[in-house]
This record gives sequence, structure tokens and C-alpha cells, in this order.
Amino acid sequence: MAERTSVLGTGLVGCGWAIVFARAGFEVTLYDESPEALDRAQAQIASSLADLASAGLIDDAATVRARIRPAPTLADAVRNARYIQESVFEDAEVKHRLFAALDELVGAQTLMGSSTSAIPPSQLTRDLATRERWLVAHPVNPPYLVPLVELVPAPWTAPATVAGVRALMQQMGQVPVVVKRELEGFVLNRLQGALLNEAWRLVEEDYISVEDLDKTVSDGLGLRWSFMGPFETIDLNAPRGVREYAERFGPFYHSLANSRTTPPAPWGEALVSHVERLRREQLPAEELDARRAWRDRRLMALVRHKREMERAT
Amino acid sequence: MAERTSVLGTGLVGCGWAIVFARAGFEVTLYDESPEALDRAQAQIASSLADLASAGLIDDAATVRARIRPAPTLADAVRNARYIQESVFEDAEVKHRLFAALDELVGAQTLMGSSTSAIPPSQLTRDLATRERWLVAHPVNPPYLVPLVELVPAPWTAPATVAGVRALMQQMGQVPVVVKRELEGFVLNRLQGALLNEAWRLVEEDYISVEDLDKTVSDGLGLRWSFMGPFETIDLNAPRGVREYAERFGPFYHSLANSRTTPPAPWGEALVSHVERLRREQLPAEELDARRAWRDRRLMALVRHKREMERAT
Repeated sequence: MAERTSVLGTGLVGCGWAIVFARAGFEVTLYDESPEALDRAQAQIASSLADLASAGLIDDAATVRARIRPAPTLADAVRNARYIQESVFEDAEVKHRLFAALDELVGAQTLMGSSTSAIPPSQLTRDLATRERWLVAHPVNPPYLVPLVELVPAPWTAPATVAGVRALMQQMGQVPVVVKRELEGFVLNRLQGALLNEAWRLVEEDYISVEDLDKTVSDGLGLRWSFMGPFETIDLNAPRGVREYAERFGPFYHSLANSRTTPPAPWGEALVSHVERLRREQLPAEELDARRAWRDRRLMALVRHKREMERAT
Repeated sequence: MAERTSVLGTGLVGCGWAIVFARAGFEVTLYDESPEALDRAQAQIASSLADLASAGLIDDAATVRARIRPAPTLADAVRNARYIQESVFEDAEVKHRLFAALDELVGAQTLMGSSTSAIPPSQLTRDLATRERWLVAHPVNPPYLVPLVELVPAPWTAPATVAGVRALMQQMGQVPVVVKRELEGFVLNRLQGALLNEAWRLVEEDYISVEDLDKTVSDGLGLRWSFMGPFETIDLNAPRGVREYAERFGPFYHSLANSRTTPPAPWGEALVSHVERLRREQLPAEELDARRAWRDRRLMALVRHKREMERAT
């Protein structure tokens, strides 16, 4: 019999996780406090699976869907679960209440991950009897297309929990990375934030338009980064590798960092209005949904392309 | 008769530009002070064109190659050129000498761009009679695969020069962006530097391994960025667009920026040695060249994929 995983919370993130687990052959129980949300989630999952099938990313949507079962109670959902992925509303109090309830319900071997993108795990699990078996497993949306998962242990998370969830995520076809100890924003959003903060500032100081800044990434920096990380990129960009790159360009990047003598201001109202106006000129509000559908098609095609490339090499 | 463009300097960047121009149907004169370098460049260009043809990115390497002619003298190279792309050694003195010589040689309509990645245009063109017709046209390597070109005017660059080179680059199939006035590192390297500096710091502080940091980009952040810029990404990531995103997440990113209370230190010797050791464990030095060939194949395949996507939508 297939092993069981449990997804608690059925927003976009929870639905995404259910697809990841079921696609990998696991039995998935899906739970939400709200029966209406649970109904909506099943429709959402069916729709996403149909999209994946028509993009050629899964063979048989019905088989995958049949592995996902809505559970009537929390106790039923987590019974015999090898792994529980919490994906409820991003609020420490809401998560606390759920985690306390789980403390009484979960089996002795169950491992547990929270999808939180910003709450430090120590703040969520400090007082739990099961706290050694909890960590943060932060996905990128949607996790069935973007495979990266940040695993962030609290100080008391057992090494076996990190190793176990890492192995499980690999088995699922995800790409887990370990953030060795907790820090604000974890790693992915710190990298994203460093680039975003510089981007907002360059527009605020009127060095470049919003449209041209976007092209700088989508037609420049972003191409290599879709298949190589920044360290591999610079390692290959100097004949003798990363040391030579650091010797030649390190002082330049250090000078750039130090050319900012004040920390960035908040993204202020005037700046946000400016960027919003320019974005709405490029893409009217009524076309946002159509553009999101375009983005999802592009992401699916890119994932298929990457798979073909990885098979070929 | 095809219009003429001229490429001065025949390192990797100059060879790349020659391919861009010739591929677009322009007649290209190629010049280098060193006849040996000019010979090597022709072999390099032939080899790159063969790669592009076998990747299905150009139809006929021989036709493109036939448009590129080595010029015996600088005067011959730039005669009747609509546009000159300077790509000589990255040294202000070397460029100064060439620009002064060009001042006496170029036609009254010729526009001129420098490939410099870091020297401000005002420092290069201040004293030239032709300074209104100069700007920086900074490519990403190799420009025949990565289409972004940063156009950076000096204070005295004529608006018609910016408009003319922008139109020319678009005609070539490149993606020009305008950096409205000069600043250290221009825009692309400032964005890259913001992410790189945070990446080096996260490794220095031992929050994550080099390998996992790279995956955070190549299997996470970098996927969307290969076809959408950061502003479009966040605009689509909140139901009501970029304003809602800024309201919900702006304070979080501001807090991340301010969590760094000191500017980054230089990439120090111990840190560089650490990163180098880990990179050489992942990729031994003797495999660097093979991995570069892999990178180029992946980049070509990605470019073909993006073209197919853009044709389809």
C-alpha cells in the first residue's frame, strides 16, 4: 500500500502540495476546517491536474487525482501519515492552534513541515511535545512546477527530521535545500529581496524604466539563472574558475555594494503609485488574469524543456 | 547594398557582436591592431556559427560568415559605417587612444557604442569632437545568445544617438534597455551584484552550502526570471497587482534589507578559498571546459525554446 502524506490547509499552496505528493505515488489526505474550502480545493486540484496533463507533464490526471482523499476530521487526516505538510493561513496564532492539536494526534514516527514563508520555525514549535519532528518546508508557488523547497530547522529540530524530510522531498521529485539555521526571510526571499530592493531603488532614482528593468532580467540575467546558480555562473565565467572571478571582479561588486550609503527606504506610496501606473500601462488590470494564465503556460513549457534537457545530458 | 557596421577589437565580445550584426544581414568589418588576433577571431566566429547552425539557431552559417570581412586598417574598417561597436581591451587608456583616432576617421553620420562593462561613458568620451554620437552599449556574453544590451549615454550624448542605437539594436534582434544616466555598474551588474553579495554573505555566515544556494536560484527564483522580470513577477503574484503586493510584502522586504546593519565586507581570501574548494568538489578544474560547453548548449536550447514560445503566443 502507498504511504500516506497529509496536507492541512487547502489554499493554493496546500492544493499544490497535494499534487506534488499524489504525482509521486503517495496517498494524500486533504483537510481544511472549512468544508466549503475543501470542496473548492478539489475543483482547483482537478483543474491544475488537467492543465498539467495537457502540457504533457503528467500522464494520467485521473490516477493522480484518485490518490487524493478529503478527510472529514483532523484526526482522520493525519492517522498513519508518514509526513504532514501544514499550509494553513499565514498567521502565527492560527498555526499555533493547529500545531497544538496535532501534538495530541500524530503518530510517533510522523515528520511535519510548515509551508510558512516568513515565520521562524522556533516561534511556531517551541512548546510542542513533537518539536523535534517539525521544521519549515517552504515551497515556491506552485510547487508542482517550481521544485525548490527550503528546509529550515528550529534549534531543537532533530537532524533525523531534516534528513528524513530531505529524502522524502527528493523522492517526490522536489529539490530540497537546507537552511542550516533559521534567519529572517530564509534564503530564497533574502536573495529575491536583495535584487528587488535594488530594482525599486533604481526605478525610484529614475535610472531606468520599470519595463526596461524587467527586460534586464528576463532577457539578460535570468537566462543562465534558470539552469545554473550564481556561484556556478561566476565559476564558469573566468578561465580558472571562481577564484579568478573573485580576484578580478570582487572589488567591483564590493564597490557597488558600498555605493549605497543608506539602507533602502520602504517602498513608499509615491513610488508604488508610479510603478503601478507604469505596470497598468503595460498590462491593464482586466488582463492580469489572462497574463497569469500565460505565465503558467510558460512555466509549464519551461519545466518540460528543462526535463528534456536533463534527460539528454 | 547592405549597410555596414564595424567591430573594433576581436576578443570574445567583439566576435560575438560580429555574429549579431552579420546574422541580421549587415555587412561587418572586423578590425584588430594585432593581425594574429584577427586571424584567431575568424576561426572563433566560424566555430560559433557552426554551433549556432547545429543548434538550429541560424539557417546558413556560410552566408552569415561571408558578411564578415577583416579590415586591414582602422580607416578601412570604419569607412561608411552606420555603426561602430568598440570591443577592445577593458582599459580606459587603450579605449581613449582608439576613440581619439576614430575622431579623425569616422563619417558625419556614424554612431558609436563601447562594450565596456564598467567604465562610465563620460570618462571615455569627454574630449572627443564626436562625443554626441558615443554611448556605452554593454552586452551580455555571448550577445548572439543573450539579447540584452544596456545603452548608457554620457551627459553630452545626443538623444538622437540613443534613439538611433536603440532602433538599430532592435533591428538586430537584440533587446536594448536605456540606462537614463550613468551610474557605477550600470543596471544589470547592480542587480547581479545585489544578489551575489547576499549569496556570498549567506555562505560566509554558514546559513547554506554553495551547492544549495545555487539550487535556490536554478530550481527556484530563476525559472520565472528567464521569461519575466521582477516587477512583472510581483505584479502577477497578488490578486490586485503590484500595489497589493507592495502593501503586503513591502514591509517584509524592507525589514530584510535593514537586517543587514553593516555593508558587505570584500569577498575575503578565506571565503574565496572555501567557495573554491566546494566548487572544485562539485566540478574538478579539469572539467571546467566541458561544463562551459554544457552551459553553451543549454543556453542555445533555452534560446530556441524561448523563440518557439514567443512564436506560439
